[in-house]
Amino acid sequence: MPQVVSVSELTETVARIFVRHGVHPDNAAAVAATVAAAERDGSTSHGLLRLPGYVASLQSGWVDGRAVPVVAEAAPGLIATDAANGFAQPALHASGPLLRDKARGQGIAALAIRDSHHFAALWPDIEPFAAEGFIALTMVNGRRRMAVWDGKQKILGTNPMAFACPRVGRPPLVWDQASSVIAQGEVLLAAERGLAIPQGAGLDAEGKPTIDPRAVLDGGSLVPFGSHKGSSIALMIEILAGALTGGCFSFEDRSAAYPGAQTPKAGQLVILIDPARVPGNRYFERIESLFAAIAESGVERLPAERRYGHRERALRDGIKLSDRNWATLQRLLA
Amino acid sequence: MPQVVSVSELTETVARIFVRHGVHPDNAAAVAATVAAAERDGSTSHGLLRLPGYVASLQSGWVDGRAVPVVAEAAPGLIATDAANGFAQPALHASGPLLRDKARGQGIAALAIRDSHHFAALWPDIEPFAAEGFIALTMVNGRRRMAVWDGKQKILGTNPMAFACPRVGRPPLVWDQASSVIAQGEVLLAAERGLAIPQGAGLDAEGKPTIDPRAVLDGGSLVPFGSHKGSSIALMIEILAGALTGGCFSFEDRSAAYPGAQTPKAGQLVILIDPARVPGNRYFERIESLFAAIAESGVERLPAERRYGHRERALRDGIKLSDRNWATLQRLLA
Repeated sequence: MPQVVSVSELTETVARIFVRHGVHPDNAAAVAATVAAAERDGSTSHGLLRLPGYVASLQSGWVDGRAVPVVAEAAPGLIATDAANGFAQPALHASGPLLRDKARGQGIAALAIRDSHHFAALWPDIEPFAAEGFIALTMVNGRRRMAVWDGKQKILGTNPMAFACPRVGRPPLVWDQASSVIAQGEVLLAAERGLAIPQGAGLDAEGKPTIDPRAVLDGGSLVPFGSHKGSSIALMIEILAGALTGGCFSFEDRSAAYPGAQTPKAGQLVILIDPARVPGNRYFERIESLFAAIAESGVERLPAERRYGHRERALRDGIKLSDRNWATLQRLLA
Repeated sequence: MPQVVSVSELTETVARIFVRHGVHPDNAAAVAATVAAAERDGSTSHGLLRLPGYVASLQSGWVDGRAVPVVAEAAPGLIATDAANGFAQPALHASGPLLRDKARGQGIAALAIRDSHHFAALWPDIEPFAAEGFIALTMVNGRRRMAVWDGKQKILGTNPMAFACPRVGRPPLVWDQASSVIAQGEVLLAAERGLAIPQGAGLDAEGKPTIDPRAVLDGGSLVPFGSHKGSSIALMIEILAGALTGGCFSFEDRSAAYPGAQTPKAGQLVILIDPARVPGNRYFERIESLFAAIAESGVERLPAERRYGHRERALRDGIKLSDRNWATLQRLLA
């Protein structure tokens, strides 16, 4: 395998690795697409870097690579999908056509996924829906890592949310963000390098503010972004992705019983709205006037534009694998 | 009028003031209920303090107190209501029964309100839906007051969002928050008192950080909470409440042409989800286990609990009007 690969070569290689570690080929294709998409778009924290974590989770028995998602029509606007302890992406793929139909037919529709492992970026889940004309919103809860504002112990996941909306003749506006000030990966990296984490990002085991990453990892917790306001957002995500779907809450995380497990077993909510169904809103025309005003105010880049730049280059020139990523791929293929 | 009044007396008095200033009695009742509810619940920033602003907006001709909302069924799950340049609350009242029916029938439904003036707290709009068993989310855009993160000029409103979810045997969990670090009212108050505003909350007319409230008011802007993450939330709200509904964007604010105008002419989105429609989620049982875990983690109060405490006292003992509020009521009744 060369060190510069095309996006499709990388997707196939990652899928082969998943299959090699017991994942059903259909499921492997769905998860591999998001890993390769992250690498393609320069979201390297959610790309090949995560592959060993996926494999370790599979080996631990914590996640079922051969899970068959069960899609149920819960109501005319509502789909309830049981991911059956598998990865989230196959559950989304299995539900996507019905979700699309419902959103077109009803104007708004939601997909509630439970018992799913979402270990990837969230934007790949919704960008395709926005590219087809839908406004899309998704939320995932996760492993217990973050305190509620004013709390002393971790209860919530870093609970990411992503939003996408369609544009005419341009790729969608998309954002994707965790509800914590910093990511768990940044804490791990700081600990490894002996560096401090930013003020206000972590609590120690007693719930006191700390800049010591080891104190956060040793029974401490992450802090929600924007103090009580980010905490409210994270709590909403816990309720929508956990309670509404019937998935596990972040605080119910049982992965410790599966040494090596890294993926979160939780839930996910996806909401699609068809902006073309609101009469007279001139959505596609007016949204461009908003983006023009934002550009005039001095904002140089809308969310996702950096990724689209990376993507263009990757599709044209291929993806250059680092020595570390190349070695990881070789090792996991062996 | 005595200085201690019952909640219903206060509601009637406020409604009479609205009628006195040209508002149709049905509209007056809807708006007065939210003003009195805010005062009842100790949300004084959205209570009687705002009454002179409502009246000034009416006198300026910027808002139409006699507007008749037009409710249209846009799709099986989607209602599009034109508030016809009136207050938002009559539009919500006119759309409520259909929204409820759709959410019960479809599992999820949305109400897109355009050309509405929302000058009140948001929680009164959704708490009743949550009390009836729905998970509810609402967002409003507003007057141009806040910069997008990395921008130098104000483009967005302070764009509040509110979320509510039902509980069994207890009032709903509800939160309601602006997307700015601090409220416009806090800037006005600091300017009046010659005080500084917090670091990181404001920009001057050149887009540089400032703690001088006068610099914010004099062509400057507010800053989103949680830096780029709160900015993403505010942008989503602008798109959902402005672009999807067909309401005005915050940057399109034309109120300056109506001296005295204080209410924002914009849009609002309300989404209801029926958690009872997701089979096997045991929503009502499991949500209590989440709140129990949060309490155990050291969090003393869930969002809305402080307001419920105020409410209980107000319903029992009445609301004691400050001299200022009493004088305001007398003046506006005259």
